[in-house]
Amino acid sequence: MSQIWIENGLFIPMNDSALQFRGHMVVTDDRISYIGADAPNPAELSPNAERIDGSKLAFMPGLINTHGHAAMTLLRGFSDDQNLQVWLEQKMWPMEAKYVDKDTRAGSALAIVEMLKSGTTAFVDMYDRMDQVAQMVEQSGIRGVLTRGVIGLCPEDVQQAKLAEAIAFARDWNGKADGRITTMISPHAPYTCPPAYIEKFVQAAHDYDLPLHTHMSETIAEVEQNVREYGLRPVEHLDKLGFFSRPSLVAHAVHLTDDEIALLADRNVAVSHNPVSNLKLASGVARVPELLRAGVTVSLGTDSVASNNNLDLFKEIKFAALLHKGVSGDPTVIPAIEALRMGTVYGAKSIWQEGQLGALSEGMKADFIAIDLEQPHFYPQTDIVSHLVYSGSGRDVKHVWVDGRQVVKDGQCTQLDEEKIRYEAAASFERLLNG
Amino acid sequence: MSQIWIENGLFIPMNDSALQFRGHMVVTDDRISYIGADAPNPAELSPNAERIDGSKLAFMPGLINTHGHAAMTLLRGFSDDQNLQVWLEQKMWPMEAKYVDKDTRAGSALAIVEMLKSGTTAFVDMYDRMDQVAQMVEQSGIRGVLTRGVIGLCPEDVQQAKLAEAIAFARDWNGKADGRITTMISPHAPYTCPPAYIEKFVQAAHDYDLPLHTHMSETIAEVEQNVREYGLRPVEHLDKLGFFSRPSLVAHAVHLTDDEIALLADRNVAVSHNPVSNLKLASGVARVPELLRAGVTVSLGTDSVASNNNLDLFKEIKFAALLHKGVSGDPTVIPAIEALRMGTVYGAKSIWQEGQLGALSEGMKADFIAIDLEQPHFYPQTDIVSHLVYSGSGRDVKHVWVDGRQVVKDGQCTQLDEEKIRYEAAASFERLLNG
Repeated sequence: MSQIWIENGLFIPMNDSALQFRGHMVVTDDRISYIGADAPNPAELSPNAERIDGSKLAFMPGLINTHGHAAMTLLRGFSDDQNLQVWLEQKMWPMEAKYVDKDTRAGSALAIVEMLKSGTTAFVDMYDRMDQVAQMVEQSGIRGVLTRGVIGLCPEDVQQAKLAEAIAFARDWNGKADGRITTMISPHAPYTCPPAYIEKFVQAAHDYDLPLHTHMSETIAEVEQNVREYGLRPVEHLDKLGFFSRPSLVAHAVHLTDDEIALLADRNVAVSHNPVSNLKLASGVARVPELLRAGVTVSLGTDSVASNNNLDLFKEIKFAALLHKGVSGDPTVIPAIEALRMGTVYGAKSIWQEGQLGALSEGMKADFIAIDLEQPHFYPQTDIVSHLVYSGSGRDVKHVWVDGRQVVKDGQCTQLDEEKIRYEAAASFERLLNG
Repeated sequence: MSQIWIENGLFIPMNDSALQFRGHMVVTDDRISYIGADAPNPAELSPNAERIDGSKLAFMPGLINTHGHAAMTLLRGFSDDQNLQVWLEQKMWPMEAKYVDKDTRAGSALAIVEMLKSGTTAFVDMYDRMDQVAQMVEQSGIRGVLTRGVIGLCPEDVQQAKLAEAIAFARDWNGKADGRITTMISPHAPYTCPPAYIEKFVQAAHDYDLPLHTHMSETIAEVEQNVREYGLRPVEHLDKLGFFSRPSLVAHAVHLTDDEIALLADRNVAVSHNPVSNLKLASGVARVPELLRAGVTVSLGTDSVASNNNLDLFKEIKFAALLHKGVSGDPTVIPAIEALRMGTVYGAKSIWQEGQLGALSEGMKADFIAIDLEQPHFYPQTDIVSHLVYSGSGRDVKHVWVDGRQVVKDGQCTQLDEEKIRYEAAASFERLLNG
């Protein structure tokens, strides 16, 4: 049995108890065995417990990034300030076509380093060569919800092979790495997968009891195309194909009608809001206040680094809290605590691990982070939730634990060789560019 | 004579030469005496020159924050997610009314620590008790453009006293601290100063050869009020009062017509764009792409911490680059380099110090910063300008020099006691809250 006793820390538990309180937390193996204002019962403490002085730190649940493509981290800064079609067709796709296993591995490793150091303890990843990503999740100590994203604009035999690969990956890796890996299956998007092909994913999701993930309504152009080709907007289209009969997480959901919002709420679909990516690619501003008001679970994703250009989920939290105020004209929408929920407890709900992740409560998984409060931008220490959302960043994260294991200590990854990972990412990029 | 020789650094000069190059820079006393790809001429180097290995650092001009209220840093997180009137009347004003000199000093000191550490080397500040702010500028080594902001909703004798105080401050401190302090005079805003009172500032600006600064068109409500009371929108109103006959910097300028944009361009008025504050207070989204297209100088300001909630100008740069893409629907507007210009060379132009600040060129003032490039979010090192804007933050700043003097070394202020300043800010806040 391993045990950690955090003494006299400032806790932001993100559950139904106090917003913040000073107190103690005990982690036994991979779970929180005690959290409260009082010191833990000595009878329940191991004499070998690691004691951590929490007096200058804030402790909160690890952040959950609900949409991304880690391997694309190699393409950071490779194409900015471009129209979507130029970005995609002339820049992203030709480079991605050159990827081999070690590139996927190098990009994913760099992404995981960035995410862990900035306080993300669980991430959703949709890409190909997912075995490589899964191995990096296993090695790094992070938690991953992984899925092979499939573009279906190809002959039927290729479609079949891709679907089979997606199912095989999902079945092989579900529950691996001590349960840190879970899986989904993912048709890439309604505009890249014919309806009959999407139906095969829905069937497979039923057959193998897997959740579904897809891109949806990111741009006006794809919504218009959907209406033109299928006579329906994407939400109704996916609903008709049975998509929402399974637990579903959709990324982006920028362009929605009131009816679509109501349908998403009714079908209990979770939305991954990607504010920075949506701004950078000029996709628009998602109707997040309306989604939340309708009762839709909205969490946050970075999308890939190629459209962001980093993986600090505190940045998405900040943009979510600020952007919708300015655009709606209402400074009270998405208050700080709601933005922080989007990055934690709503994230857990979006990956169907509510009650296990996203809050600091007894019995839950010990995925949590420690923030260094002794910094000028956290003074005066009036309201730490406000400070984390509006003034803080992933750079304030000092320590990170996943499943009770410390994966970042004093800002450095404990399970990964950061210098080697930076070097290998640079080498992979050079080869992709000139190879 | 003191001399610094930066060897083999990556330079982002922000002038008409290359976007970035690897090379050398020599600082002699307070100015850049050499910058270029080749090593400096040994005959021009002092044997005692401090040599700095630049191989893992990027060097760029220090950032220029063109609108703020440093003393309000004490009110960080004190009122978020509120309607403007509640925020102002129930929260800000009652606390500000309790300020005494040492509070202004404590708030300004904390603000300067934050700014220096995140790479800001010059800042515009409009508040009262400005002697306190000026003394902190003198002590800290930062550069300040300071002005006593005057609200004129008071009897005429009080108006006269305030104007006299504003003029006295501007005349006393202009050129002080080895020229690091320059001054302006500032009627607070058209909605807080009657027209006849604004005209007195204009006259004083002519009499004493001072530039003018004011808040303008931050909210729709104040624009509508201006039209109601004076029959003109704020730009035409200020123009009619002669405001723009002097060098002028206006903050916010969120709500503008095409005609107002054309008039600002014609009168050579600089605009301080405050994207985060405008979003947080739900003021709206300024028409920055249109302003830039019309030839208006647009720089960046944080506004006060009470509506931001930190002073990292890299954040404003990022928001400027991202926000206007998403809102306009055009991903090519405000490319990375243009956003970086807004934080540097356009900032210098906004405070009438172009050619002295905002770029790294021979003969210019040695106000510059060094960025630590050995971090995961800067890899692969494809495009450093893109990385600084979209992926970086003030937390990446390692060293800062102002006037050739190193004011931040390895992330710590050299002229200020950071721990004492944090403590004093906390103590001042407690006193304001409970006193």
